[in-house]
Amino acid sequence: MSSPFSYHCEANCSHTHARAGTFHTPHGPVQTPRFMPVGTLANVKTVTPDQLATTGAQMVLSNTYHLHLQPGEDIVAEAGGLHRFMGWSGPMLTDSGGFQVFSLSQIRTITEDGVTFKSPKDGRTIHLRPETSIEIQNTLGADVIMAFDECPPYPCSREAVQASTERTGRWLKRCMTAHQRPDQALFGIVQGGVYPDLRRQAAQDLANLDLPGYAIGGVSVGEPPELIETIVQATAPCLPENKPRYLMGVGTYREMAQAIAAGVDLFDCVIPTRLARHGAALVAGERWNLKNQRFRRDYTPLDATCACYTCQTFTRAYLCHLIHAKEMLAFTLISIHNITELIRFTQQIRAAILADRFAEEFAHWLAPSPTLDP
Amino acid sequence: MSSPFSYHCEANCSHTHARAGTFHTPHGPVQTPRFMPVGTLANVKTVTPDQLATTGAQMVLSNTYHLHLQPGEDIVAEAGGLHRFMGWSGPMLTDSGGFQVFSLSQIRTITEDGVTFKSPKDGRTIHLRPETSIEIQNTLGADVIMAFDECPPYPCSREAVQASTERTGRWLKRCMTAHQRPDQALFGIVQGGVYPDLRRQAAQDLANLDLPGYAIGGVSVGEPPELIETIVQATAPCLPENKPRYLMGVGTYREMAQAIAAGVDLFDCVIPTRLARHGAALVAGERWNLKNQRFRRDYTPLDATCACYTCQTFTRAYLCHLIHAKEMLAFTLISIHNITELIRFTQQIRAAILADRFAEEFAHWLAPSPTLDP
Repeated sequence: MSSPFSYHCEANCSHTHARAGTFHTPHGPVQTPRFMPVGTLANVKTVTPDQLATTGAQMVLSNTYHLHLQPGEDIVAEAGGLHRFMGWSGPMLTDSGGFQVFSLSQIRTITEDGVTFKSPKDGRTIHLRPETSIEIQNTLGADVIMAFDECPPYPCSREAVQASTERTGRWLKRCMTAHQRPDQALFGIVQGGVYPDLRRQAAQDLANLDLPGYAIGGVSVGEPPELIETIVQATAPCLPENKPRYLMGVGTYREMAQAIAAGVDLFDCVIPTRLARHGAALVAGERWNLKNQRFRRDYTPLDATCACYTCQTFTRAYLCHLIHAKEMLAFTLISIHNITELIRFTQQIRAAILADRFAEEFAHWLAPSPTLDP
Repeated sequence: MSSPFSYHCEANCSHTHARAGTFHTPHGPVQTPRFMPVGTLANVKTVTPDQLATTGAQMVLSNTYHLHLQPGEDIVAEAGGLHRFMGWSGPMLTDSGGFQVFSLSQIRTITEDGVTFKSPKDGRTIHLRPETSIEIQNTLGADVIMAFDECPPYPCSREAVQASTERTGRWLKRCMTAHQRPDQALFGIVQGGVYPDLRRQAAQDLANLDLPGYAIGGVSVGEPPELIETIVQATAPCLPENKPRYLMGVGTYREMAQAIAAGVDLFDCVIPTRLARHGAALVAGERWNLKNQRFRRDYTPLDATCACYTCQTFTRAYLCHLIHAKEMLAFTLISIHNITELIRFTQQIRAAILADRFAEEFAHWLAPSPTLDP
C-alpha cells in the first residue's frame, strides 16, 4: 500500500538551501514553505474555521497535551476525530505533548519510561509515555503526529543534552512501534540543544529511519535568537531532501526567512493570535500596538497591501476603537490579519523561490545582524 | 421631496392586531415583525458583520450614549458614518442615550433643559440635551434615530410619571426642531410608565405629529413581566397604522409574541449576545446552559432545525468543550446561533401572519399565564 504522504520539491534556490515544494496529506496538500496557525484546544483562538480558511491556512496544529486534559481524546474521537470535532477539513498536525510537559518544571518526574506530572487542571497524576502520546494522537486523528521527545531546558550542560537526546532517540523507536494508523504520518524530532554536533548526529540518526517527515525541536526555549539560526543551519542540511522539514514553535519573520534559507519547509507559532489579544498587529515586518493614539483617527486599512477580511473591511481607527472599548471582536479581526500576514510572508518566499529570487528579494531578512524583529 | 422611509402593511391577522409589513430605509428594507441585534459600541459583541449578515439580521442597533463617550461621534463621522465605520451596509438605528443616562441614577441631575452626568469613563461632566442627542445622532448617521426621552424608574408615582411624560413630549418637539437630516428618520417614543391611560394619551399626542415611526419606551425597567403586556396592549393600538412600531429593549420569545399580537413590528435586546457570553443558548424556546455536563458527549447540532453556521458546523459537545476551556470562540459561535434564533422566531411569526395562522400556531406564546420564558 502506498503512503498517502509524500513531499515533492518544485524548486531549489541557487544561493541558499531554500526550496519550494508540496507536502501531500489525506486532507489535502500543503504548499511549502508555509506558516501553520495553532489551534491549541481544537480551535484557533477567536477565529472560526470559515474565517481561518480565508487566511490561506492549509495545515493547522492542535496540542495533544491540552486536548488530553480537556476534553479528552475519547470525546474528540467519538465526535468523529479532530477534523470533524473542530470543523477544519484541511490537513492537521498534533504535537506530542512533550514540549508542554517539559515546561511544567515544578511538577514532573522524568524516567526512561516517561514523564509523570500533576494535571494543572484538576491535580490528578498523569503518566505520559511515548506509547501514551502516540495512542492519544492516534485517537485524535490528525494527519501528522509527532514523536514524544524530551525537550532539554536552556541553558543545559552538553552531557545532559547528549543523554537527553539519546533518550529522545530511544523514545522515537518506541513511538514508531506504538504507531497504529497508516493514514497518519509520524514525524521524528531532532533535539540536541544548542550543540551543533549533537544536532547533526541526531539528524543523521533520524534520517536513517526513513520517516515521512522531520522536525527540529527544542528551540525557542530561551536561547538567544542567533543560536536558533546556528542550530537550524547545523540540522536542516542533514535531513533527507525528499521529506518535509518542520521547525517547531518558530514564527517570526526573520527566524522563518533564515530557516527557509537553511532548507526548512514548515513553521508554527502562537504569535499571531497572542499578539492580537494584546492589540498588536503584524504589518510590513513590524509589530504595531493598535492601542496607540496615533491610530485613533487613521481611516486607512491596517495594511493596504493585505487582502484579508480585516484589511478589506475596517480601518485602523475602528480597530483602535474596539481595543479601547475592550471589545473581543478586536481579537478576532486582528488574529485574522496576523495569521494571513505570516502565511502571506511564507507564500511570498515560496513565490520568490519558484522564481529563484529569494536570496535577492529577502536579503533584508537574511542579513546576519538581528534588527527589530517582531 | 418624498421621504426615503415608508411602511407598507402586507397582511393583518384576523384574530389579533398582529401585522406583517416592510419598512423601507435608505440602506434597504426591514421585513417586519423583526428582531434587531444590538451593536452597542459599533459592533455586535464577538460577531463580525459578515457573520451577522448570515443570521438574517436586517436593521442593527448602536448606542448613542456609548459611542459619544467612545470613540466620539466625530471619529465615526470622519470614518464615513456608522455604517462604514463598523462595516454594516444594512439599515441601522441609534437610540438617543436617554435610557442609559437615566440608568446612571447616582450621578445625574435632570432639569427641563436636559441631563447632566459624570462620564463613567473619564469622570468629565456631560450635559445631554434633546438637541445634543439629535446632533450626535445626525453625526453618527444611522437610518433611524430616536427622540431623547426621560425614562422614569419603576416603581414611580402616577404624578411623577405624568410630569415626566409631558416633559418627554416637550423634548420630542425640541428633537424634531433640531433634526437636520432628511436621510434619517426620527422616531418618537411613547412613555407613561405602567399607567395605561398615560400611555394612551402619550401615544395619541405623538400620533398627531406624523412621525416616520414610533417606539414604546420605558419598559424592561424592573416592572413585572405581565405589566409589559398591559402597557403594550394599551399603547400599540393608539399608534398610526401606516408607521412602524418598535418596542424598545424587549427580546424574549413570549414578550415579542405578545407584543406582535398587539401590533408591534420591531424589537431589540442584548439577550442573545449576553446569554452567549454566559454559555447559554436559545433553543426551541428554552435557555440551555451549554456548560452542563449532559452536553459533554452530545454529538448532535445545537439545534437540528437551525440553519446557522454554528448549528451546521459544530456539535453540542464541541461548544461545551469550548466553554469549559474558556475559549472566546464559544461566545462567537453561540452569539451567531442566538441571534439567528430570535430573528428566525420573528420570521416564523411573520410567515404565520402572512398565512393568517399566527394566533393558532403561536397560541403557546400568546397564552396569558407566563411560563418559563427565556
